[in-house]
Amino acid sequence: MPDEAGDALAPRQVEIFDTTLRDGSQAEGLSFTVADKLRVAEQLDRLGVHYIEGGWPGAHPKDREFFERAAAGELRLAGAKLVAFGATRKAGGRAETDPVMADLMGAGTGVVCLVAKSSPWHITETLRTTTVEALDMVADSVSYLRNNGKVVLVDAEHFFDGYLEDPRFSADFLALVEQCGATPVLCDTNGGMLPHQVERVVGEARRITSGRLGVHFHNDAGCAVANSVAAVRLGADHVQGCINGYGERTGNADLTAVIAHLSLKLGIETIGPQRLALLTPVARHIAEIANVAPDPHQPFVGFSAFAHKAGIHTSAIARAPSAYSHVSPEAVGNTTRFVLSEMSGRSTVALKAEQLGIDMSADEAAHVVERLKELEHAGYHFEVADGSLELMMRAATGWEQSFFRLESNRVVTDLRPDGSFLTEARIKVSVGGERMMEVAEGNGPVHALDAALRKALGPHHPELARIHLTDYKVRVLDSSTGTASVTRVLIDSTDGERSWTTIGVSENVIEASWEALSDSIVFGLLHTGATEHEAGDRGPAR
Amino acid sequence: MPDEAGDALAPRQVEIFDTTLRDGSQAEGLSFTVADKLRVAEQLDRLGVHYIEGGWPGAHPKDREFFERAAAGELRLAGAKLVAFGATRKAGGRAETDPVMADLMGAGTGVVCLVAKSSPWHITETLRTTTVEALDMVADSVSYLRNNGKVVLVDAEHFFDGYLEDPRFSADFLALVEQCGATPVLCDTNGGMLPHQVERVVGEARRITSGRLGVHFHNDAGCAVANSVAAVRLGADHVQGCINGYGERTGNADLTAVIAHLSLKLGIETIGPQRLALLTPVARHIAEIANVAPDPHQPFVGFSAFAHKAGIHTSAIARAPSAYSHVSPEAVGNTTRFVLSEMSGRSTVALKAEQLGIDMSADEAAHVVERLKELEHAGYHFEVADGSLELMMRAATGWEQSFFRLESNRVVTDLRPDGSFLTEARIKVSVGGERMMEVAEGNGPVHALDAALRKALGPHHPELARIHLTDYKVRVLDSSTGTASVTRVLIDSTDGERSWTTIGVSENVIEASWEALSDSIVFGLLHTGATEHEAGDRGPAR
Repeated sequence: MPDEAGDALAPRQVEIFDTTLRDGSQAEGLSFTVADKLRVAEQLDRLGVHYIEGGWPGAHPKDREFFERAAAGELRLAGAKLVAFGATRKAGGRAETDPVMADLMGAGTGVVCLVAKSSPWHITETLRTTTVEALDMVADSVSYLRNNGKVVLVDAEHFFDGYLEDPRFSADFLALVEQCGATPVLCDTNGGMLPHQVERVVGEARRITSGRLGVHFHNDAGCAVANSVAAVRLGADHVQGCINGYGERTGNADLTAVIAHLSLKLGIETIGPQRLALLTPVARHIAEIANVAPDPHQPFVGFSAFAHKAGIHTSAIARAPSAYSHVSPEAVGNTTRFVLSEMSGRSTVALKAEQLGIDMSADEAAHVVERLKELEHAGYHFEVADGSLELMMRAATGWEQSFFRLESNRVVTDLRPDGSFLTEARIKVSVGGERMMEVAEGNGPVHALDAALRKALGPHHPELARIHLTDYKVRVLDSSTGTASVTRVLIDSTDGERSWTTIGVSENVIEASWEALSDSIVFGLLHTGATEHEAGDRGPAR
Repeated sequence: MPDEAGDALAPRQVEIFDTTLRDGSQAEGLSFTVADKLRVAEQLDRLGVHYIEGGWPGAHPKDREFFERAAAGELRLAGAKLVAFGATRKAGGRAETDPVMADLMGAGTGVVCLVAKSSPWHITETLRTTTVEALDMVADSVSYLRNNGKVVLVDAEHFFDGYLEDPRFSADFLALVEQCGATPVLCDTNGGMLPHQVERVVGEARRITSGRLGVHFHNDAGCAVANSVAAVRLGADHVQGCINGYGERTGNADLTAVIAHLSLKLGIETIGPQRLALLTPVARHIAEIANVAPDPHQPFVGFSAFAHKAGIHTSAIARAPSAYSHVSPEAVGNTTRFVLSEMSGRSTVALKAEQLGIDMSADEAAHVVERLKELEHAGYHFEVADGSLELMMRAATGWEQSFFRLESNRVVTDLRPDGSFLTEARIKVSVGGERMMEVAEGNGPVHALDAALRKALGPHHPELARIHLTDYKVRVLDSSTGTASVTRVLIDSTDGERSWTTIGVSENVIEASWEALSDSIVFGLLHTGATEHEAGDRGPAR
């Protein structure tokens, strides 16, 4: 595909300003601890963003603590500059005595980002002051911070709405910010702009400013990424946004997509070409710290972003890998995946078997196709359970696990009169011909079953010590009958080198959990090269 | 905000073509049954889309059955036209004898959508034929279907990439499609286009066509909505997409946002102004049928799309409701929400208490703020658990539930040697001064506990029969220690009129489940007006 190298107005280099820790943390469902914030900042620095907005020290004790701990040496940034955020001084006050200014100075960062209303309507209606005083609040606050050695950015709140309302005031606002020595950042605070409106407003703003010009888009219209790209094409050279598009309401511009577009499609320097492949791992790492399930359909970095399911595409891709990808997945640290599902034909199954090193006949592949349809109909979902998928495919070739054989188990949970809960599991299995009977307590049924199974298998399989469960998820599939519905359990496991996911489905969450747990342990033992004890009992393994 | 009424090229009316059931069902994680497809089609018709693409009868038995059952009277559409999808005839064949054509005729729809490659590179490299034959496949197939009374659309696969590669072939392709009496639909199959590229290609296509011109965008660049809007501004008057943006990889253009933009921002007729308020309920209903958790951050229709969390915004919104919304939430059937969280101050809590009809003093509101911080730190998440939030807020005013008092419970799950699982729960509670002891079996621990609790409370609270659990979700919060982590359980319940969500958090999933279950029952009893039996025992209720 030809490179569309922007037009004459596009800059050669764009500064990336990340506000995941400030504006992003407004997202409903997101809550960072101070330790989380420090870890997110490290990841952002690793990615190579130019600015990391850490928080609003005056508004949240947590953010104040973040800046204190960062300054005390808990955060060492290789290249990024830490930024403290705050409002301009209060109407009618003085910057020297304003508590917000004091908090900003106290944060100890070299860069400060001030928010200031730039729409006359918002100034009079929500701030309840005059446009003259609003401009004075900007001038006074910026001058104070500049005189105290700070680099200052001014987030011009509601700039786009304000421009459509009164372009002359917008021009005055921009001139003032530049005159005071700060960088103006045009904010679409309500997030409703469309790219053609952005082109008009940024084009005009670019004509009347001479220094750096920033933009900051919210995604209420679903256009924050498109708007960021449109703004850069018209001359903006500083873009604010959040990793994974976190933020209040519908979120902020997703910086992962913005960086990928500017770098790969417009040929503009952002975080440097050698760091683009960090986009996917850093985006996922930050999602993990945020404890937010990553959106599999997220552009560029999503788990499904380069996944192919339809037969018509998979056969074409096998012939021409670039046929159905707008960029190379590897360029952004992602990978092409072929997805098995009830829609998959035998050729996709055969391709997958080859990837897994399973020797599979055409008949067996046809059997897998049928089995996938049955199991997915029953509620299994192998797209997300690579571990169980592999075991199912191996089983279709006649393989059976022979690490242990389960006889029975029992799980008991008591709420005792003192209000405490206790869970214990009892398990009976045979391992290498020996009958084992063990009991263990746990923090819950899965933990107790896992502990009991490990006690029983441990003597024969010391390699189990390397295998850990890392996540446990439950979803009810058909909610029409409440708790009597089918329950799907997913367990993520790791041996420190590779990770795998297994699945269990049953009306009973304990049964589903046991199935996923058992698959997890079997998959782990299979890939740590454990001895298959009872192969002789169960017919030849293939 | 001023209405940006497109430019001179924008049409006055745009046809909405929904392909949720065909292209959307390629989404990883999505699998519709035939019954699901019939229900989705009903919802799309209710919303007022012009075309519903039902599937590919030649490729999937499920899709064939869908068309059969639709034709047999299981689907009655008020206004939408059902469309069958398929490829053009095979290279070197004849439409009259092509099996795909026979399948399309057999689907019994008045409208057919054919996919045809329109990029020379794809024709030669992935289809392995000549451009001459490719054009002949289109002409032959369209003519055959037209002669058999069908209205025909042609999805020009890879049109945008093809145009950038060889605009002359693209022009020939468009001319041929129009000449054969079909409507061309320009597809960005790889989804990599940016709005300025779309403007260029659609502008050119519009100049060389005279009839309807369609577009179909994938979201790999995160710009499918912006691209659809850009195309319409340049003269396209037929837009294809999927509800909620479902689709392969990163999905298709989200029709909910496209419809909202065209109608509310460009002033173009789509589904009719009286139906716009159906966007949110239909989007959520279809998500429910698809059994996909709706994206809370989805533009326009997401649960968080008009949610406000930050204190700075909530106080401004209280003064001027339109200050922080790009459109009126009610226009698209959504609502403004104020979100309580650890970031909330006393004024937000007081506002919420007022909404809930709880009489709360300033001291009590301050106590709620503290309690929210503590509980959210421990893993609670009240933003999504309105039921438990209300109970917690009531508790802060001194209220205590007095419907029952728990003494103890026990849950036992057995995997028996015959391979079957059995769960039973035993519960001891006092209700209205009477000590009740009951045992019940269930499909799992929550079901068994729910059944036992209902047996114990039922005689005193017959209104319990109206309360049902509708969903049960489990999430592990800190995955660093696997199954020993904290578990968060959410239970959704309904009494047929209102729905509520309750939460439980514990290391033990059974304990967390019990907490959420108990809150669910208490909330339900409270709002069905059940008698609070033991108020006298527990001090005055407020």
